[in-house]
Amino acid sequence: MNINTARARDFCRRLFCAYGFSKEESIIITDVLVRADLYGIESHGIHRLVRYDQEITSGQVDIKAELEIVHETGVSAVIDAKKMMGQVASVRAMNLAIEKARSSGCAMVTVRNSNHYGIASYYTEMAAEKDLIGVSMTNTEAICVPTFGAQAMTGTNAMALAMPAEPYHFSYDASTTVVPRGKLEVFRKKNEPLPENWALDAEGRPSQDAALVIDNIIAKAGGGIAPLGGLGTLHGGHKGYGLSVIVDLFSAVFSGGLTSNYVNRKPDHTGICHFFMAVDYGIFGDKTAIKNGMSKFLREIRESKKAEGCSRIYTHGEKSTEMMKERVNGQIPVNEKTLEEMKAIAKRLGIEEI
Amino acid sequence: MNINTARARDFCRRLFCAYGFSKEESIIITDVLVRADLYGIESHGIHRLVRYDQEITSGQVDIKAELEIVHETGVSAVIDAKKMMGQVASVRAMNLAIEKARSSGCAMVTVRNSNHYGIASYYTEMAAEKDLIGVSMTNTEAICVPTFGAQAMTGTNAMALAMPAEPYHFSYDASTTVVPRGKLEVFRKKNEPLPENWALDAEGRPSQDAALVIDNIIAKAGGGIAPLGGLGTLHGGHKGYGLSVIVDLFSAVFSGGLTSNYVNRKPDHTGICHFFMAVDYGIFGDKTAIKNGMSKFLREIRESKKAEGCSRIYTHGEKSTEMMKERVNGQIPVNEKTLEEMKAIAKRLGIEEI
Repeated sequence: MNINTARARDFCRRLFCAYGFSKEESIIITDVLVRADLYGIESHGIHRLVRYDQEITSGQVDIKAELEIVHETGVSAVIDAKKMMGQVASVRAMNLAIEKARSSGCAMVTVRNSNHYGIASYYTEMAAEKDLIGVSMTNTEAICVPTFGAQAMTGTNAMALAMPAEPYHFSYDASTTVVPRGKLEVFRKKNEPLPENWALDAEGRPSQDAALVIDNIIAKAGGGIAPLGGLGTLHGGHKGYGLSVIVDLFSAVFSGGLTSNYVNRKPDHTGICHFFMAVDYGIFGDKTAIKNGMSKFLREIRESKKAEGCSRIYTHGEKSTEMMKERVNGQIPVNEKTLEEMKAIAKRLGIEEI
Repeated sequence: MNINTARARDFCRRLFCAYGFSKEESIIITDVLVRADLYGIESHGIHRLVRYDQEITSGQVDIKAELEIVHETGVSAVIDAKKMMGQVASVRAMNLAIEKARSSGCAMVTVRNSNHYGIASYYTEMAAEKDLIGVSMTNTEAICVPTFGAQAMTGTNAMALAMPAEPYHFSYDASTTVVPRGKLEVFRKKNEPLPENWALDAEGRPSQDAALVIDNIIAKAGGGIAPLGGLGTLHGGHKGYGLSVIVDLFSAVFSGGLTSNYVNRKPDHTGICHFFMAVDYGIFGDKTAIKNGMSKFLREIRESKKAEGCSRIYTHGEKSTEMMKERVNGQIPVNEKTLEEMKAIAKRLGIEEI
């Protein structure tokens, strides 16, 4: 099913206001969620409302929280989000990084005690729209098993980076696992075996049984998903494992928050941590020349020889930019079950349904 | 074969002095090369002397070059290495980043017109030894084919990051390709088919023929190695491809140098570019607490449950630190052919052989 984008946006805003968030906060959360749908990343779009409802009602999210800057320099800040909605803490953290980068050239802000922040690229795009480089990372509940391990120790641990370019910004946004958990759920629904090299059972043996792996993840019974590069070291799994540790370093260790292996261990506290960086690339010289250099390199990649049977090479951010153009004044997809659940939430909160 | 580490070091220094490098430069180049052997990364150790000899005699390396800082702020510098040896330019660049990070909190230095710089982790360790975070990247000749492509557009494009921790620093150092070219050469020598998902022929079709792929790379005839994550998107090849573009952004685009697809296109100019960052993690609060937090997280990973049949989980930098302890006052391996070639070079330059 498809629903009108403007209507979805209006519903989200009303919904978050009804929970008790301020109008400004409701607009921020809505914008991050709808942007995911505009980019074609439905897993992080309004589909998440149902899960956020659980997080809000369970007390994992504190609607009235005010964040606190616990440490600050000219190039850095450490924020305690005090269980605030992840989107609100993150927009403020990236705005602080942007402000500091404008005066210092580059700045890093790390955030503890937050919650799920949606798509990492929303925040990197905030910087890119202001002609800066943006970097964003987040840890999550442990789901990724280190090379030679049998127990998940790091999260999906996304890394994102945006750099202004024409006609599309370069916008990288990817988990450091071989796939995010949602991909396993697709195979479970279809009742198909997982591709090799994706997942492990509780003893650390390769497993292609999606149901078993997901159930183990939910029960925290061991096993999980392989890092980018897959199981073992043959295809570079140790590289993805290292990248996932780097995300925990920047988000959790620097903020003094919870590393992935402690996230979501309490019913009323996720403890998710984020990291944001903004860099004014004018610190490297003439911005027009640098931006043109990036645009040229990306264009050369897109125009390079295609593999047999492929008609197009994409650069990162190209697909989502095109998708957004199509959807922003049009419609976004939503599955029927999610729509029914949203209607039930609306009814409970006493607001007009979507 | 094994040779005494001190003797190898002495030989290298004498060799580089004989080419005409200053004593200080010869010590730097030697230290980077020998460190690779101490870490167990022989592909980047004294084995490289033979290739460096070609680069020096062909004019790709300018022995008398003096680097120039072409742009500078309190948090950044852009260096033109003027075809200097990569190790010399890189040690100076990282020292500059360290100096700036000590006063500003964080600093980035990008370098153009350099040459092969050896192991990326040498430079990140320079920062970590001074209790800072170090980041280092380098582009190379194009060898990595973008997702859906048939032509190499990015290089091996290593990324390294070191963060102080006990008892081992966290020291990540990895190419953004699924494997470096050296791994393909091992399969060619053994006359064995490559693992699936590693490489492509000139039409962008998957290929397990190591000889064909390597010959195509040398002839710049198309095809090459897959990015980390492998061919296509199933195992996340688009992620490794994006990471390789990020390396070119920081090293080549920011420095105004050559992106990988233009590197090594002239007989007397490689045009290799690097990037260095140093961060004083005290910008995030108490350094002891932060370092302890990282040490604890790494220890928890090492001590987590092992996969069936595995006795140990390593954290990044652990193996190389242990290897170095063993080799530093002992011996390093060198193959007989390399030793013969080194003897021939020594004879040509009129120095005592190894």
